[in-house]
Amino acid sequence: MLKAVYSGIPGSYAEEAALAFFPAGTPLLQASSFGDACKKLAEGEADRVVLPVENSTTGAIAEVYDLLSRYGFFIVGEQYVRIEHCLMALPGADLSQIREVASHEQGISQSAEFLGNYPDWVRRPVYNTAAAAQMVAQSGSPHMAAIASRRAAEYYGLSILAGNINQKAENYTRFIIAAREPEFEENSRKISLLFTLPHTVGSLCRVLRLFEEAGMNLVKIESRPMADRNWEYLFFLDFVTDRPDSPEKLFEHVRECTQTFRFLGRYPHKEPGK
Amino acid sequence: MLKAVYSGIPGSYAEEAALAFFPAGTPLLQASSFGDACKKLAEGEADRVVLPVENSTTGAIAEVYDLLSRYGFFIVGEQYVRIEHCLMALPGADLSQIREVASHEQGISQSAEFLGNYPDWVRRPVYNTAAAAQMVAQSGSPHMAAIASRRAAEYYGLSILAGNINQKAENYTRFIIAAREPEFEENSRKISLLFTLPHTVGSLCRVLRLFEEAGMNLVKIESRPMADRNWEYLFFLDFVTDRPDSPEKLFEHVRECTQTFRFLGRYPHKEPGK
Repeated sequence: MLKAVYSGIPGSYAEEAALAFFPAGTPLLQASSFGDACKKLAEGEADRVVLPVENSTTGAIAEVYDLLSRYGFFIVGEQYVRIEHCLMALPGADLSQIREVASHEQGISQSAEFLGNYPDWVRRPVYNTAAAAQMVAQSGSPHMAAIASRRAAEYYGLSILAGNINQKAENYTRFIIAAREPEFEENSRKISLLFTLPHTVGSLCRVLRLFEEAGMNLVKIESRPMADRNWEYLFFLDFVTDRPDSPEKLFEHVRECTQTFRFLGRYPHKEPGK
Repeated sequence: MLKAVYSGIPGSYAEEAALAFFPAGTPLLQASSFGDACKKLAEGEADRVVLPVENSTTGAIAEVYDLLSRYGFFIVGEQYVRIEHCLMALPGADLSQIREVASHEQGISQSAEFLGNYPDWVRRPVYNTAAAAQMVAQSGSPHMAAIASRRAAEYYGLSILAGNINQKAENYTRFIIAAREPEFEENSRKISLLFTLPHTVGSLCRVLRLFEEAGMNLVKIESRPMADRNWEYLFFLDFVTDRPDSPEKLFEHVRECTQTFRFLGRYPHKEPGK
């Protein structure tokens, strides 16, 4: 059976992504960083790595794509996880006892409206929402609360004092699943790639039109300046296509009008909430 | 004198951005999250807020731009900070004594090659590199080390055991400086804005050409799907222009081909390393 590795601890949103994506019973390993997770895949300790790429507390798409390129990995799937922050404390503790609240700083930031009702609570930022839940569980103190996911509360045996306290009702983090080799499942409609271009609108639009003419819809574009090269920009793009044929011919044309080009993978397209 | 607020603690890269941007002696306040920092600006406790928007350990451009829009703030400047991770410990401690290393998980990840020489060290992720340095200083233990900036070592009285241990020689985080009102300094060459579009390559290229015809160079583009609206995408863009005139006329045309449009500010353009 395949083994998967994610960066984080049990109860984290990364673990939720892995649980949602893989069949029940898939062994899940933990890693202490994105780089460590990729190392475990490279060395064969795991067969899949789960990494956040969008709207995440720590996920910088550039860092993740850089790791994929460095290791030569390919994206084989994606998974959206709904971010629903809850306030949790030891069983039996109630709201009036809380004096301190721990969470990732984005958990604190995203729950600002709710926390506005409790201006006296000390805010304690920690590196991960699940780590905050773990800390509260280990503290044994009824005066401490954590902001983390419902799953983190379950995992660390905490009671939920208030559910869904983040401002935005709909907030998703996108995770990608990568492997050492590319996979071509049926129904693989999404394609991720990166290329570099001299940064003129003309050259960008020329490349985008090539994809459009090939029936591929742009669903994500992100640029990043390359620190060591003047006027050269790195683009990360996702497309969705309904054509089953391989886009090799298209990629040849794209290679001609880009400076460097890398195919990152073709995989089934998912939507948030599914 | 103007007061500025940043999200983080002394010794963090955010503080470095503030120190580099503002004249010496500018009072600098700390906040526990991006949202808290913006609140201090909104309520007049501070006159400027410093927020990371690119390549940052915690900076999600979407969250920051969402806060700017919600509060109606404007970008008035930018500052790049070079990320140079150092390994630091209590004065007198040496490498052979270290058993545990604390840092933000990206600090650990970005120093993987160096840490590969010390596979036995326990990795302890914390929420911020400066918080790792503070923790080592407070621990009093010669067996603990932190990965953080040179400035964090100075601030917390630690000695540097190894300098510049991150993989990439050149690694910058971009911060923006925002205020309650827009400012139009002379030499304000950079313009930031956001708009929504139905996501077709045609509509995107049409808007990009309007900017090109007006002599504005695209230097950054990023798209984000809007969770609640099918096929509608939010774009964040930065342009650089040498024309001193106000782009109001251009913005009128852009408004006609976009769904929502917001001008985020015009400010002096800086480069990494300056």
